[in-house]
Amino acid sequence: MQDPDQRQEFTQPQHAAQAAPAAPAVRTAVIGGGVIGISWTALFLAHGHRVTVSDPRPGIDREVHEGLLRIAPAMAALGRPLEAYEHRLTFEPDVARAVTGADAVQENGPERLDLKRQLWATIEAHAPAHALFATSTSGIPATDIAGALEQPERLVVGHPFNPPHLVPLVEVVPGARTSPETVERAVAFYRSLGKQPQVLRKEVPGFVANRLQSALFQECVALVADGVVTAAELDAIVTSSIGLRWAVAGPFRTFHLGGGPGGLPHFLDHFGAGLEKRWDQLGRPRLDEQTVALLSEQAERDFGARPVAALEDERDAAQIRLMHTLRPAPPTPSA
Amino acid sequence: MQDPDQRQEFTQPQHAAQAAPAAPAVRTAVIGGGVIGISWTALFLAHGHRVTVSDPRPGIDREVHEGLLRIAPAMAALGRPLEAYEHRLTFEPDVARAVTGADAVQENGPERLDLKRQLWATIEAHAPAHALFATSTSGIPATDIAGALEQPERLVVGHPFNPPHLVPLVEVVPGARTSPETVERAVAFYRSLGKQPQVLRKEVPGFVANRLQSALFQECVALVADGVVTAAELDAIVTSSIGLRWAVAGPFRTFHLGGGPGGLPHFLDHFGAGLEKRWDQLGRPRLDEQTVALLSEQAERDFGARPVAALEDERDAAQIRLMHTLRPAPPTPSA
Repeated sequence: MQDPDQRQEFTQPQHAAQAAPAAPAVRTAVIGGGVIGISWTALFLAHGHRVTVSDPRPGIDREVHEGLLRIAPAMAALGRPLEAYEHRLTFEPDVARAVTGADAVQENGPERLDLKRQLWATIEAHAPAHALFATSTSGIPATDIAGALEQPERLVVGHPFNPPHLVPLVEVVPGARTSPETVERAVAFYRSLGKQPQVLRKEVPGFVANRLQSALFQECVALVADGVVTAAELDAIVTSSIGLRWAVAGPFRTFHLGGGPGGLPHFLDHFGAGLEKRWDQLGRPRLDEQTVALLSEQAERDFGARPVAALEDERDAAQIRLMHTLRPAPPTPSA
Repeated sequence: MQDPDQRQEFTQPQHAAQAAPAAPAVRTAVIGGGVIGISWTALFLAHGHRVTVSDPRPGIDREVHEGLLRIAPAMAALGRPLEAYEHRLTFEPDVARAVTGADAVQENGPERLDLKRQLWATIEAHAPAHALFATSTSGIPATDIAGALEQPERLVVGHPFNPPHLVPLVEVVPGARTSPETVERAVAFYRSLGKQPQVLRKEVPGFVANRLQSALFQECVALVADGVVTAAELDAIVTSSIGLRWAVAGPFRTFHLGGGPGGLPHFLDHFGAGLEKRWDQLGRPRLDEQTVALLSEQAERDFGARPVAALEDERDAAQIRLMHTLRPAPPTPSA
């Protein structure tokens, strides 16, 4: 069943940077066909891979096809059109059968430990021995899920920043017993899909991107609840300053440059005390009824005139233009 | 001395969106010729305005000219080349004389209340009655500085996100007694320079952008100090996820879209409890000796191979490409 050459594609990190058209097709199993599962499906299909979607819900095939239609323009704009994929996409509600013959399993089941443990025990029992095991979970440690496996070294978190077909980041978070080989293969696989995987050195709740996002959002809520700015005004401040900055240079690099010739050490030396003082002044709001009502009212007023789907398409189109702009020039082909 | 038409340029908000080449020259006084003062100077000159830099330090003229040379490529890339400005740039160490005949005063003195109060008392005593008064302070409320003025309604904070010649945001923060007219004129002036001014509804320490930046940075420090990721890895996570997002859509819009058709209300309803739980798990690091040593060591290792100035030029070039990408298409010229 398994052509050994086929699995080399994502077991060899040095192949990852190659243009994906040359890469052989990977047989993927996407477990769970919700928003995240559909987005992974689009990404895998756009890279020429095979996808078996496993989701017990009735009408899942129509749902996935409709989702792919919605994603198609974004994939085309990304230079990865969703073409002639019908024969590469199959549906198999039974998880055991869905993973038979899979080279890679990306699981997007409900965020409940008991369900994930059950799913993964089934997957392990039926997937080929070489298959890569990744869970999209945004919050459950691989260590906890892998407790249900006979070979816990095979499972790793591959948490995408939503939606996976678009945003480059995939947080690769090994559990206590995940093997370095699994991590390496996951990184190579995601990289072959044009993603920017980042391996975390420690399992922490929420991983990194969502923790950072929630830290910023807490102060956003504090400032709006305090009446300093409205939600839309705050958004305008972010997109015209720190958002622009952090799209091209992260917080540490930004402050390194903010330190002048002395870099970050100079910055911390001169502004560290001020930063600590500021930290002590940050708001600690709760999402109580009154705050939720205020934020909802402002969102309705500022964003409610147009359907969310239209705003999303607009945002994603801008996002893609920006990604094209920031993408490094392709290397000169060697003779 | 004063041609009334000249001051209309920034007293009439409806003129702000016009292409600036048509706007008459404004006579600006830039008080304090440090990094921020030089950056404002470049921006004002690139828009055809006159600038008198007032700074008592010896050699300030050479310093400013050198600074302008460094900024020139960025202004050219922004489509606002710094050309033939020599006759529009003068130096006058005496503040009283520097503001005589100024239409707009942008003060960038040391961040000390006593010094700023002294400076502004002098400025008020010698500037024309129509002159716009703005301070670049990042932390001192206009209310406190304006206590030294006979007409406190004239002073407003115009806090740029560094550097002002490049980053669009200017936080316009009125003090308790700042007049609506002053706020309106400041907004129109900054808009005429291609900036994105945002008026705050309340004076809070650190204003908005720096508070948000410090909230995110606190969690950055926590995660690096905890060994979850290195500084450079954290930066890569930001630029490949939330940074990209926030360059095109702020945090509220992002979560509005994250709520699906139900928008932010649905998002808060479904994820609010999880967010609050996450807030309680955020790190509360201090910048103690050990943490500063760790961050400095990582910055040196990850960014130290190249001079800060080179990294800065590279970052700013990427920033400008991104701004061009995100800039809305110019309106079709009317016949």
